[in-house]
Amino acid sequence: MTSDAESPRTPGTVRPGGRTARTRAAVRDAVLTGLVEHGYPGLTVEYVAEHSGVHKTTLYRRWGGVEGLVADALDLAGEDTWTPPDTGSLHGDLTALAHEVLDTFADPAAAAAPSAFIAAAFQSDRAADALRAFYDERFRRCAPLVERAVGRGEVPAGTDASAVARAVSAPLFFRLFITREPLDAAVADQAVTAVLAAARAGAYAASPPEPTAGEPAGTAP
Amino acid sequence: MTSDAESPRTPGTVRPGGRTARTRAAVRDAVLTGLVEHGYPGLTVEYVAEHSGVHKTTLYRRWGGVEGLVADALDLAGEDTWTPPDTGSLHGDLTALAHEVLDTFADPAAAAAPSAFIAAAFQSDRAADALRAFYDERFRRCAPLVERAVGRGEVPAGTDASAVARAVSAPLFFRLFITREPLDAAVADQAVTAVLAAARAGAYAASPPEPTAGEPAGTAP
Repeated sequence: MTSDAESPRTPGTVRPGGRTARTRAAVRDAVLTGLVEHGYPGLTVEYVAEHSGVHKTTLYRRWGGVEGLVADALDLAGEDTWTPPDTGSLHGDLTALAHEVLDTFADPAAAAAPSAFIAAAFQSDRAADALRAFYDERFRRCAPLVERAVGRGEVPAGTDASAVARAVSAPLFFRLFITREPLDAAVADQAVTAVLAAARAGAYAASPPEPTAGEPAGTAP
Repeated sequence: MTSDAESPRTPGTVRPGGRTARTRAAVRDAVLTGLVEHGYPGLTVEYVAEHSGVHKTTLYRRWGGVEGLVADALDLAGEDTWTPPDTGSLHGDLTALAHEVLDTFADPAAAAAPSAFIAAAFQSDRAADALRAFYDERFRRCAPLVERAVGRGEVPAGTDASAVARAVSAPLFFRLFITREPLDAAVADQAVTAVLAAARAGAYAASPPEPTAGEPAGTAP
C-alpha cells in the first residue's frame, strides 16, 4: 500500500509533480499520521490542516471533510506502480505475494497505514468504498500472474486470477484483523500450498469441478 | 456468535441461572447495544449502567471499565453450546459452516454484535485478546468434523481441523471486513470447493506435500 503522488491516474485533474500533487501528498501524509495516531474517530480536519500546512477552508472545499480526506488518501495509495511478482512459477509468485503481506504487517511502520484504513472502513462508508476500489485494482493487477501460470500449464485455463490472489491474502488478513492470531512464514506458506492445490484442481476456474460426493457446487454466477 | 448466559463455563464464579448470571447477561446486552449504536470509541460505562440497570460503581468494581466490559461480553458469547454441523460428508459440513457465516452477515441484526466486536479489537488490546480466544475455541470445536472426514477417507490423516475451519471462514471475512466486497452463495461455495481440494491434496496435513516445482514448502513448525 505504498503510494506515489508523482504518478496520478487522472490526467488533467492533478498535474504530475505539480503544486496540486504536492498539496494532495502533504494532505495524504497528514491524514495517515492522524489515522495512525488517533484512529478514524479521533481524526479532525483541524488536525490535517495543522499537519499539512493546508488551510482548513481549502480542505473543506476540496475534500468535503474527514470522510473525503480518508477516501482520497486511499485513492492516492492505489495510484502506485505496484505489479505482482514474476518469479517463473506460480508457487514462487504466490509465495512472494504472501510474504509481501507478511513483511508489511511484521513492520509496524509499514502496517500502520493499511491497518488504519481497514479500521476506518468500519466507521465510514466512503472509506469502505475506497478500500473496495483499492483492493479491486490490486487484484486486477494480478491477472498476468495467473495468465503466465495458465501458459505454463500449471493451472487450468479460465482460472480466475483475482480469486487466486484474494485466496492467498485472505487467510493472512483473517488472522491479522479477525481472529487476531500471530502471522509467520509457516502460515503464509500453508496459504500458498492450499491455494496452489485448489487452483490446480480447478477450484478457481469459471466452472469449478463437481465435488466427489456428487452434491451440486451451487455456484450460480 | 450467539450466547447463552445460562451455561457459564467457570463453575463457582457464576451460578447458572442465578442473579449473578442474570446481571452479567444484562450488562452484556447493554454492551452489545452500545457497541452497535456508538462503536467502541463511543461506548461508556455510564451508557452500560443506564441500559443494564446495574450501578456504575458495580460495573467499575467487577469489570474495571469499558475494555473489561467488552472482553467479558465476548467471553460470554463464547460460552454457548455451538457445535459444528454434521451432515455426513465433509463437503456438506463445510458448506453448512460457510453458509452459517453467510447467513449471519446477511442479517443486519445478527451481524451487528460480531461486527462490533471485530471493530472494537482495532482499538482495544483486551477486545483483541478476547476475540482471539473466542475464535480459537470456535475452531477447536470443529475437530470432530475433520476427524469424521478422516474416518470416511475424505482427507488424509493428520489434517489440521482448525486450519480447515479457518480456511473456510477466511475468504468470507476477508470480503466482509477487508476488501468490503459483497458476499453471496457463489463466494461461499467457491471457498468450500477450494478448501476441499486443498484438504484432499494434504495442504492442511502436518507435513504438507512438496510443491511440484520442487521448491521447499518452508513450513517450519
